[in-house]
Amino acid sequence: MSGEPRIGIVGATGAVGTVTLGLLAQRGYTDVRAFASSRSAGGTVPFGDRDLAIEEATPEALAAGDLDLVLFSVGTSASRELVPHAVRGGAVAVDKSSAYRLEPGIPLVVPEVNGARALENDGIVANPNCCTIPLTCVLKPLHEAAGLARVRVSTYQSVSGAGARRMDALRAEDPAEHNLAMDWTWEGDETEEESKLRAETRKIMELPDLPLSATTVRVPVLVGHAEAVWIEFERPLSADEATALLRDAPSVSVVDVPTPKDAAQTDQVLVGRIRPDRASEHGLALFLACDNLNKGAALNAIQIAELILAQQRVAA
Amino acid sequence: MSGEPRIGIVGATGAVGTVTLGLLAQRGYTDVRAFASSRSAGGTVPFGDRDLAIEEATPEALAAGDLDLVLFSVGTSASRELVPHAVRGGAVAVDKSSAYRLEPGIPLVVPEVNGARALENDGIVANPNCCTIPLTCVLKPLHEAAGLARVRVSTYQSVSGAGARRMDALRAEDPAEHNLAMDWTWEGDETEEESKLRAETRKIMELPDLPLSATTVRVPVLVGHAEAVWIEFERPLSADEATALLRDAPSVSVVDVPTPKDAAQTDQVLVGRIRPDRASEHGLALFLACDNLNKGAALNAIQIAELILAQQRVAA
Repeated sequence: MSGEPRIGIVGATGAVGTVTLGLLAQRGYTDVRAFASSRSAGGTVPFGDRDLAIEEATPEALAAGDLDLVLFSVGTSASRELVPHAVRGGAVAVDKSSAYRLEPGIPLVVPEVNGARALENDGIVANPNCCTIPLTCVLKPLHEAAGLARVRVSTYQSVSGAGARRMDALRAEDPAEHNLAMDWTWEGDETEEESKLRAETRKIMELPDLPLSATTVRVPVLVGHAEAVWIEFERPLSADEATALLRDAPSVSVVDVPTPKDAAQTDQVLVGRIRPDRASEHGLALFLACDNLNKGAALNAIQIAELILAQQRVAA
Repeated sequence: MSGEPRIGIVGATGAVGTVTLGLLAQRGYTDVRAFASSRSAGGTVPFGDRDLAIEEATPEALAAGDLDLVLFSVGTSASRELVPHAVRGGAVAVDKSSAYRLEPGIPLVVPEVNGARALENDGIVANPNCCTIPLTCVLKPLHEAAGLARVRVSTYQSVSGAGARRMDALRAEDPAEHNLAMDWTWEGDETEEESKLRAETRKIMELPDLPLSATTVRVPVLVGHAEAVWIEFERPLSADEATALLRDAPSVSVVDVPTPKDAAQTDQVLVGRIRPDRASEHGLALFLACDNLNKGAALNAIQIAELILAQQRVAA
């Protein structure tokens, strides 16, 4: 590969796709193509100060061999159908759906946590769930210092995690109708989101037996996910020590009270309320917030892409 | 005492006072007087199919000796100032503020949990915090069965808990501005709400050392508080056993997914998502929701009042 990397975005018109295009333009990429379903094909999407034509995301177009890297922001079944064609065409696929996250041999990557795994790919790298990404950014330095024993987390997830249409619905909703929801598919006694959060955290942290219990909740906020977290450690770790570790952690900012609104449109995982867990001996409680469309999705995928593009440049 | 109980409501124009008047009218009380600050005095408040004149809540009016029971729904400092005058006048005061909740010798009562304590009063009975009430309704039968070892709770509290003006503010807010908040006074590394939830639960459950860690969060919902709860027990308790116990518990309804909207305007604590805590051996996770103005405040206080009125009738 030489010169500009040739990047494709599949799902360019969705909530995460739109943020992805904005971030790519900001970062100076120029050889970028937008793909979407036949419904959107033929239209355009803004890209920096110009517009990109929307191409239909067909197997043929993705397999044509003229893309180095393809970022997928589509649903799980669309990813399963289309990702293999991009790989067949010689591109590396960074997939934001849950289609490949738990497949053995496919890296599931948060660059700050296990970035080296991105380079061990056979054409596909999976991007984790929007709650897993900030959680592992915070757990990683604490685990290295004191060893994770048990994790409990309850989430406050914004409607943008459920897509652009749900954002429009919240904008139009009478505030008297605002409610909490657990609007995920059920897997036995858990939401799919809860079991994802556990399984993905285990895979990324390489702690296959980590005890982790989650309660995932949708709240009437447009953008930004928050999480209340309790962590029990193998060894003592004071709130001050944890705070110092988190101040030094990449992509993490320590603040007094993290909120979705403060996290929105930033690249950082905000963490605060770091204090002893009054219900355990070696435990801490904390609260975190993160822009679920940005570091929780689009930015994390771009950071994965940049690890891969850097390797392609070295190999070229 | 003979005939109709003479009941006063102090703070009759607030969010909880309004619900209190509605519940008293529904329950057939007729000798009811409404008190509020000088700002509201002279106006009227609806009471069933008629209006009550609003009287100014002065020490003299409350101490005049013509009330059997006074329900206080005012702030902590107003309660501290006014409650003693009602008691001096011979009434029993049921106070919904936090002024007296942790005073030794003053009963703090959830009728379903420790109702007998209400009868041990010296003129004042305190009504717990709106998150403590539903939590203890759920913890009580589980504690009797298996012994509470540790409790962790994160809350999803509606803006009505912060007063009628905050409800108006949410109604008028651009949804893009909706956010989470921890809008309580700070006590060291906790919100006052978090330390209240621990201290009040310990007092009501008569477990002075119960380890309890809380994270309290305000969400952009108008009415109804929810709580994600993890409970570790001394002895094994299966999710099925806990569910059966909660189905039999007074004022508790077991549902699949409790939400604030389903709880609003009901008398019940909704509890669901009862499942093993995958992060502990003898642990369960669950989710609950409750109308914070109703069972979380006004109704609980009226239930306390009714225990006392029944005793007064027996004594008369």
